[in-house]
Amino acid sequence: MAPKGGFELKTPKGTRDWDGKHMVLREHIFDTIREVFKRHGGVTIDTPVFELKDILAGKYGEDSKLIYDLADQGGELCSLRYDLTVPFARYVAQKNVQQIKRYHIAKVYRRDQPAVSKGRMREFYQCDFDVAGVYDPMLPDAEIIKIVVEVFEALGWHGRYTIKTNHRKILDGLFQVCGVPEDKIRTISSAVDKLDKMPWADVKKEMVEEKGLAEEVADKIGVWVQLKGGKDLLEKLQNDESLAANESMKQGITDMGLLFDYLECFDATSAVSFDLSLARGLDYYTGIIYEVVTEGSAPAAPGGSEAAAKQKPKKKGKASEDDDRSDDPTLGVGSVAAGGRYDNLVGMFSGKGQIPCVGISFGVDRIFSIEAARLKAEQGKEPRNNETDVYVMALGGKGFDGMVKDRMRICNQLWAAGIKAEFLYKNKPKLQNQFKAAEVNGVPFAVILGEEELANGQVKLKQMGLEDGHPEKEGVLVQISDLVGEVRRRLEQDRKLEELTRNAAGLRVVDGVKGEDIKLEDGGAAAPEV
Amino acid sequence: MAPKGGFELKTPKGTRDWDGKHMVLREHIFDTIREVFKRHGGVTIDTPVFELKDILAGKYGEDSKLIYDLADQGGELCSLRYDLTVPFARYVAQKNVQQIKRYHIAKVYRRDQPAVSKGRMREFYQCDFDVAGVYDPMLPDAEIIKIVVEVFEALGWHGRYTIKTNHRKILDGLFQVCGVPEDKIRTISSAVDKLDKMPWADVKKEMVEEKGLAEEVADKIGVWVQLKGGKDLLEKLQNDESLAANESMKQGITDMGLLFDYLECFDATSAVSFDLSLARGLDYYTGIIYEVVTEGSAPAAPGGSEAAAKQKPKKKGKASEDDDRSDDPTLGVGSVAAGGRYDNLVGMFSGKGQIPCVGISFGVDRIFSIEAARLKAEQGKEPRNNETDVYVMALGGKGFDGMVKDRMRICNQLWAAGIKAEFLYKNKPKLQNQFKAAEVNGVPFAVILGEEELANGQVKLKQMGLEDGHPEKEGVLVQISDLVGEVRRRLEQDRKLEELTRNAAGLRVVDGVKGEDIKLEDGGAAAPEV
Repeated sequence: MAPKGGFELKTPKGTRDWDGKHMVLREHIFDTIREVFKRHGGVTIDTPVFELKDILAGKYGEDSKLIYDLADQGGELCSLRYDLTVPFARYVAQKNVQQIKRYHIAKVYRRDQPAVSKGRMREFYQCDFDVAGVYDPMLPDAEIIKIVVEVFEALGWHGRYTIKTNHRKILDGLFQVCGVPEDKIRTISSAVDKLDKMPWADVKKEMVEEKGLAEEVADKIGVWVQLKGGKDLLEKLQNDESLAANESMKQGITDMGLLFDYLECFDATSAVSFDLSLARGLDYYTGIIYEVVTEGSAPAAPGGSEAAAKQKPKKKGKASEDDDRSDDPTLGVGSVAAGGRYDNLVGMFSGKGQIPCVGISFGVDRIFSIEAARLKAEQGKEPRNNETDVYVMALGGKGFDGMVKDRMRICNQLWAAGIKAEFLYKNKPKLQNQFKAAEVNGVPFAVILGEEELANGQVKLKQMGLEDGHPEKEGVLVQISDLVGEVRRRLEQDRKLEELTRNAAGLRVVDGVKGEDIKLEDGGAAAPEV
Repeated sequence: MAPKGGFELKTPKGTRDWDGKHMVLREHIFDTIREVFKRHGGVTIDTPVFELKDILAGKYGEDSKLIYDLADQGGELCSLRYDLTVPFARYVAQKNVQQIKRYHIAKVYRRDQPAVSKGRMREFYQCDFDVAGVYDPMLPDAEIIKIVVEVFEALGWHGRYTIKTNHRKILDGLFQVCGVPEDKIRTISSAVDKLDKMPWADVKKEMVEEKGLAEEVADKIGVWVQLKGGKDLLEKLQNDESLAANESMKQGITDMGLLFDYLECFDATSAVSFDLSLARGLDYYTGIIYEVVTEGSAPAAPGGSEAAAKQKPKKKGKASEDDDRSDDPTLGVGSVAAGGRYDNLVGMFSGKGQIPCVGISFGVDRIFSIEAARLKAEQGKEPRNNETDVYVMALGGKGFDGMVKDRMRICNQLWAAGIKAEFLYKNKPKLQNQFKAAEVNGVPFAVILGEEELANGQVKLKQMGLEDGHPEKEGVLVQISDLVGEVRRRLEQDRKLEELTRNAAGLRVVDGVKGEDIKLEDGGAAAPEV
């Protein structure tokens, strides 16, 4: 865009405007997620976009360098939030909240190297659901997984996602029994986490050569961390005498046993994979951890989800620096949601002791990319730009004055009944321009005013896009006094029909109308990593 | 709150957390406004929270000192957005948008001296609707006013708000005819704008003594700017020969005439006051301007709205510095919405010429304050914290195991049907704790599990809060296979009943339940200025 005033007209690096069909799709994803959150009793809170710098300090390890600071213009030093979890913990501690199921859908900020094509932006959305409070074991943890299942089922992803779960105490127990020195547990844990990106041989090499682990210890670990399954794997752990004797392992096994029992009550086991290689980067997890992967989201999956492994060729060797976000506190490479139990974070703020928490964060930018790609693949189906139900038009012959006031009065009547209606802001519009304005947004109905009809207290009501030969192709005359009722009846019919035929995403779409494509490369919209 | 780590646990100065009933009320206000925006064909866009510093430069005059800058951490220099209008103009220019009806509900940032009790925060929300494009005169302008009417009627403010309107060209013409030198027009205009806060004598004094205007010129102005009315006032201007001869005045009168005609078509005249004292601070307005005031929002109204003037004692003398936001680009003191036509702003960014715009910004924080005060006054009526429909409980005697898995299975059945349901995260909960958990959030229905009933495939369904003697006070037994249908039927009934009895704000409320009050002084929630 030609600048005026000597600077480039653009959004800052790593940010973008959301508009048009992108925005409609994004709102649809938010609505879907929000509906599930509310179904489970979630309440929302809204924290400031920036926090005191001290609140964020010491929470993100090396990634702290990615925090955006506000300029020191006098007064407090502040930083833009890096995630929604730390502000939530600050809130719980500050307000001394004892119990809450909270959700928060909002932007977070990271001065990362942007990779627009991969959906890695500096400003991006997170959708978080967290349960804080002292409860009986694994009850909220199981409900979080149920929430994950409901979200992806509602998005139409049935059979196309895997919820990988593991337990920090099982990992810790495993490392202890295998003989990993206490001070190496975290670094060995983070090496194990790379099994979704590199083969065991490379992970072992890293453990032994880079991290100085004894080879026989690494080999013992290797026997276990390449396993995944369900309750069967839990039994296998239990049947190993040395593992079963470890205190940390015992606790983890008890928790995971409860989890599987509860998930059966919730009918939520089919997408869950108990995966001993899942470790997750963040130090603050203390119990169950999970990460959701899907076909379109996993770039290379030697140790990844079954679904992903089936589809994608294996990528050999070390992942490039660009791919490596294994220490990202919220999302690993290729995952669309992630989270876990963090029982000690609130205590970092509070003098009043711990409030245990468990939560999930949905990576909506990545979910958006995958949905947009799918819609693009489904030729001719596009989300509508706006939600207008009726376009009010006028048609006339010689000396036609455009009937602008009549169009306004009809709109007013429709608005009063809560019907979404528009008219063209022209005194004497051409009929074709009015139809064009309606078609471009996929408006389903037109009300057409003519002088003669109006003199009889009538207007023409026409459903857009009917096929030639349809008995109502040219529209039907209705009394103005009946218009609201007629429009409502037809909208209701139209919606019922749409429900039967709507696409998997549950989006209201418009068929075969030329409009803006969902272009993934356009305006920074993110493409899935393949 | 006791800090840990040597810093105070709080949000930054001038910011707050939104939660609980405050959040529910705020969401209700957003939903109401959003529904109206969509009814008029609005589409939403989402721009970044920060813009390049150069984009904001030179747009806010003296108030530029209130802009938050990001720290220079290498790379581009950025600032937090100050309003939603300049980012919108940047967007329209950058994407070369020719026509759009866009709405945007988002936070903006000003390093102002916060006045929490007055609802002046450093981080606050704006709800904007703007129409960009070349159209026939006053058509979008009239629809904006219709939108204002629909929003406040939907909020239940019928008869309690006044939409003050004026036209920059009428003011300019008036000043020209009265003999105000060209270079003094803006400063005299801003003096006139203070007539809603101070009497004419003081405004005149400011014009003559501070701004060096000849006294006879000020007197001539005084005759006109104290007038307000409707079409009658327009006729009065037309009937003044010298005024009617002025070119700028002529254009303004034609526009305002059209506006009144169109507002009649929209049935939207009753709250509109044509007010010659309304000038608005921002330089960028070029046509119609408007500002909405209400009883609760106008602190001192000698020249303010009729509604306000009736209710409030007049405040004499100059408003305190603290009150003075007459140069605030979006909201004057005491107004709940404001806007106007700005035909030249997009051109400040674009090399491709002007895209005329007209828009409105709703001051939702102030609207929130007024609504919260009203709800507080309506004793015993409070918005619900969450939207849960059913609380699933268990009741048992000696040896009762808590039936946690049965509660989970019943919840799962309800969730699958889209019903919002919760259960207590306790293995063996006391019945009273389960009822308490339901009551605190005003959950309308309880499903109570008992071992005996369950053996018969039944549960008890109980509507909460029924009066003693009601035939279903103790609940009714239903087959588990019929549970979803029974719950749906009763929720439907309950909703219909609620629609008949809901309070003016249209909020779902819960009667007489002890819970968190809407406290205006709490956590920075804003009190209306009185």
